[in-house]
Amino acid sequence: MLLLKILNVFRYPIKSSHFQIKKLSTISHPKNYDLIVVGGTLGGLAAAREATALGAKVLVLDQLHSNYIFLRGILKKVMHKAALLGEACTDAANYGWVIDKQVNHKWENLRKTVKTHMDNVKLLDHNAAFENIFHGLGTFLDPHTISLISSSENCVSLSSKIFLLSLGTRSLHPKTPAGAKEYGISCDDVFHLDRPPGKTLIIGNEIEGFECAGILSLLGQDVTMMVGTEVLKGIDRQMANIITSMMIKKNIRFLSECQLKPIDKLPNGKLKILWNDPSKKLHAEEFDTLVFAIGRRTLIEGLHLEKVGVSTVPLTSKIETFNDQTNISHIYAIGEILHEKPESYNLSIQAGRLLAKRLFGNSHELMDYENAPTTIFTPLEYSFVGLSEETAITRFGEENLEIYHSYYKPAEFFIAKRDVSNCYLKVIALRRGDQRVLGMHFIGPEAEHVIQGFSTAMKCKLTVEALMNTVGMHPTVAEEFTRIRITKRSGLDPTPASCCS
Amino acid sequence: MLLLKILNVFRYPIKSSHFQIKKLSTISHPKNYDLIVVGGTLGGLAAAREATALGAKVLVLDQLHSNYIFLRGILKKVMHKAALLGEACTDAANYGWVIDKQVNHKWENLRKTVKTHMDNVKLLDHNAAFENIFHGLGTFLDPHTISLISSSENCVSLSSKIFLLSLGTRSLHPKTPAGAKEYGISCDDVFHLDRPPGKTLIIGNEIEGFECAGILSLLGQDVTMMVGTEVLKGIDRQMANIITSMMIKKNIRFLSECQLKPIDKLPNGKLKILWNDPSKKLHAEEFDTLVFAIGRRTLIEGLHLEKVGVSTVPLTSKIETFNDQTNISHIYAIGEILHEKPESYNLSIQAGRLLAKRLFGNSHELMDYENAPTTIFTPLEYSFVGLSEETAITRFGEENLEIYHSYYKPAEFFIAKRDVSNCYLKVIALRRGDQRVLGMHFIGPEAEHVIQGFSTAMKCKLTVEALMNTVGMHPTVAEEFTRIRITKRSGLDPTPASCCS
Repeated sequence: MLLLKILNVFRYPIKSSHFQIKKLSTISHPKNYDLIVVGGTLGGLAAAREATALGAKVLVLDQLHSNYIFLRGILKKVMHKAALLGEACTDAANYGWVIDKQVNHKWENLRKTVKTHMDNVKLLDHNAAFENIFHGLGTFLDPHTISLISSSENCVSLSSKIFLLSLGTRSLHPKTPAGAKEYGISCDDVFHLDRPPGKTLIIGNEIEGFECAGILSLLGQDVTMMVGTEVLKGIDRQMANIITSMMIKKNIRFLSECQLKPIDKLPNGKLKILWNDPSKKLHAEEFDTLVFAIGRRTLIEGLHLEKVGVSTVPLTSKIETFNDQTNISHIYAIGEILHEKPESYNLSIQAGRLLAKRLFGNSHELMDYENAPTTIFTPLEYSFVGLSEETAITRFGEENLEIYHSYYKPAEFFIAKRDVSNCYLKVIALRRGDQRVLGMHFIGPEAEHVIQGFSTAMKCKLTVEALMNTVGMHPTVAEEFTRIRITKRSGLDPTPASCCS
Repeated sequence: MLLLKILNVFRYPIKSSHFQIKKLSTISHPKNYDLIVVGGTLGGLAAAREATALGAKVLVLDQLHSNYIFLRGILKKVMHKAALLGEACTDAANYGWVIDKQVNHKWENLRKTVKTHMDNVKLLDHNAAFENIFHGLGTFLDPHTISLISSSENCVSLSSKIFLLSLGTRSLHPKTPAGAKEYGISCDDVFHLDRPPGKTLIIGNEIEGFECAGILSLLGQDVTMMVGTEVLKGIDRQMANIITSMMIKKNIRFLSECQLKPIDKLPNGKLKILWNDPSKKLHAEEFDTLVFAIGRRTLIEGLHLEKVGVSTVPLTSKIETFNDQTNISHIYAIGEILHEKPESYNLSIQAGRLLAKRLFGNSHELMDYENAPTTIFTPLEYSFVGLSEETAITRFGEENLEIYHSYYKPAEFFIAKRDVSNCYLKVIALRRGDQRVLGMHFIGPEAEHVIQGFSTAMKCKLTVEALMNTVGMHPTVAEEFTRIRITKRSGLDPTPASCCS
C-alpha cells in the first residue's frame, strides 16, 4: 500500500455526489494497475473514468498544465467573440442603431473580462473529477514500470499492464536567430498580455498564428504575418488559399519566405526585427510584439519514453499511433500529442472513452478522427468535417469524386455592406452509387454552428441526395449546404446572383 | 391557340440563359393543359418548372401578391437581425468595446435600409422565371375548366387535367369590435411603418405576433400582448411556455383572456383601447399602434372553389390535404394555404417539386412535412425539427419514448451577463431499439444555424447513439445536442454547473 496525495483539489473540485473528498488523505491502491494514464487532460480523465466504470484499476498521473488545451480553447473563443462583436457594432449602424462611426477597443477592459471568465472556468467542475490522481508525471523505468516522486519526496514504483499517454503540448520556439527565444511569445501568451499587443509580427504557418492574426487585427492591432511556403498545413488547400486572401483583404500584411535576423530589444521597449526578403534585400522594422506560431511540442521530456521504446517525431516529440496504439503494443496515446491528428479536447475525450471501452469492455468501436468537425477562427470562420479535396482525390481518385461547390451571399453581410467574396462552401462526395458525402467545407458567418449538425449527419452516412432533400431555412447561411447543385466538373459559375437567390 | 401576355417581367426577370424574353408578345399554347398552377408562389413555380421538365404542358396563373410570403420571411429576418445587433452592441461593452451605455435605435434609419434591401430583393431573379405565366387567377367554371380575363378583357377558358393550388395568404382581421378592422394592422404592416410603432398592442396567439413583439421590444418599443388560452398553437407546449416566460422577463406585458371593446382614434392620433379583464374590470389605455396576429386567410375568394367541390376550413379558407391532394382527386394544394401545416416557402418549394415528380415522373416520394426545420424568432431563437413532445406521446405512447433534455449556459451569454435561464434543448426519441430520434428542440442563440444540419441528420435516420457519438465543438451552443445524457424519466436535474461544464 502506498500513500498518494490528491493535490489537484483546486483544479478538479470533486463532485461530492460522485466522489468522497479526502483532503491530503491516503488512498489505498494496488501496486499493479490495469491502466496508468499519464497526463490528466480531459481525454485522459475520460479514459480513466470509463475504464474504472468497466472494473479496471486505474491511476492518473497529472501535472499542472495538462488542461491548458482546454483553457486555450476557451480563451481563443472569448477573444474571437470580442473580435466579432466589434464587427457587429459596425454592422449595427446599418440597422438603425446610433453608434459612433469608429468604435474603439480597450484591450485592458477585455483583459479584465477574460481574466474573470478564465478564473471562473478554472474553478469549475468540468466533470473532470477522478479518484486516483497523483500530482506528477513520473519516469519510465521499464516498459511496465513508472517511478514517481510523491510530495514528501518518497520514490515510488508503480507497474501497470497498460499505459495511456495523454499529455498536453506547448508552443515551439525557435532557438535561432538570437533573441527569438528571449523575446518571442506564443499565441496564448498574446491573449494574456496586460498591454495591447500593438504592432505585432506573427511568424509561422500554423493555424493558431492565423487565428491570432485575424483576431488581433479586428481588435484594432497592426498585424504582420511572416509565413513559409505551405501555410495552414493539413487543411484543404483551396480553403487555405481563400483564408489567406481574405486576411490580406482585411489589411493583414503577409511576408513570405523571409529569413529572420538576430532580434534586439530597443531602449523604448520595442523589438528591432531585421529580415531578408526572398530577393535577399534586408528590411528592418520595430514591433511591439513578436509571436511564434511554428508548431507545438509535447510535454514528455521527463518520461524517458526511450526506455520503453516508444518512438517520437523529431522536434515536436509527437507520437504516431495506429488506432491510438503506439509502436509499443501496451502503450497507447490520445489527444494533442498525436502526430498530424487534429488538436481538440473533444476529440480526445471521445478517443479516451472509446479506447477504454475497447481495452476493458467488449467494444470494437474505433475513434473516427476524420468525421469530427473542426472550426478555424480567422476570424471569419472556416468549419469542416471529413476529407479535404486533396485527401479525397488521393484516396478515391478524382474521376470517382463529385465535388459540389458554391459561393453564397449571406443576407446579414449584404445589408451590412460587408465583403461577401469569401463566403464559399463545398461538398466532396463519391460520384457513383448513393453519392456518399466524404467532406464538407464552409467558410462564412456562424460556420461553427452550421457544421455541427452536418457532422452528425455524416455519422449517419450522409448522401448528396439526403442533403438536397433537406428543407433549407431561408434566408440562413446554414441552408446553403442544402442548395448545392453546381459541380466543379460542370465548370458552371458557382456565384449566386444575389444574397437571396 | 390563345394569346397570353407575360405581365410579370418585373417580378420574374427571366434569366436570359434559360428563357427567351418576349415582352408583351404572344405565346402559343394548347387549350388543354396537363397542369394549371393557380398561384405563382415559389412552391407553385417549382412545381411548374419540374413538371415542364418532365414533359407536361403547364400554365401558371399568378396575381401580384403571391410571393409576399417570401418577402415576409426576408423582412422578418432583417428586423430580427436588427434586434439582435442591438443586444450585440450591449454585449460588446463587456468585451472591451467602448460603447455608450444606452445605445439608441432610429426606426427611420432601419426603414431606409429595409426599403433598399427589399427593393433589391424584389428586383432579383429568384430563379422564379417560368415561361407560361398569366397575370390573374381566374375562376373555376367546372372541375376541369378555369376562366381567365386577359388584360385586353377577353374572356378565355382553359382546361387542365390537374390543378395545383399554391396561392398566398393575408393576415386575418377581426370584424368586431368597432374600429378593429379600421385601425388594426398586421405584423407585416408594422415592419413597413414609416414612424416607430411606439406603444404597441399586439392581439392574438399566433407565432408571428410573438415574433413581432420580441423584435419591437428589442428595438426599444413598448409592447403589450393580449393573448387567449392557447398561445403559439401547434408548437411543443413546454417550449411555448419557455418562450412566453422569456418574453415576460424581457419586459413584454401580457394580458390574458381579455375582451376588447370598441376602439376610438383620438385627435392626437393615438388609439384609445378599452378592454375587460377576466374579472370583468374595465381598462382603458392609449396606444400608438394596434396589431392583430390572429391567423391568416387564403386568397382564394375569386376562384369559386365551391364549383369544383374543394372543401375549405371556415374563417381561414385554408385547405386540408392528404399527401398534397385535396378532397377532389385531380386538385392538389401546397404552401401556406394548407390547414395546420407549417408556413414556409422552403417547404412549399420542396412540396411542389416532389409533387410534380409524383404526377409526371415515376417518383413515389412524399413530402416530409415533419422533418423540416423551423425557427421562431422571439427573438431568442427557438428551432425545432420533427415531433413535439405531445405529438410523440400521442403517436407512440409515453412509455415508448425517451426524452433527453438539458439546460445549458452559452459562454457568449455568460460573459455578456445575459439571462441564460431559458437556454434549453430536448431530444425526443424512441425508447427501444436504436433510439431513433423523433424530434429535436432548441432554444438559444444561433438556433436557426444549429438546427439545419441536425435536420439533415434526421433525414439520415438519426439515432441517439449517433448523436452522442458525434464529437462536439467546445464551447459552442451547437455541441449541446451531442452532450445530452439526462432523460426526463430519470428525474435528474438538467441544469449544468456552468457555462463550460
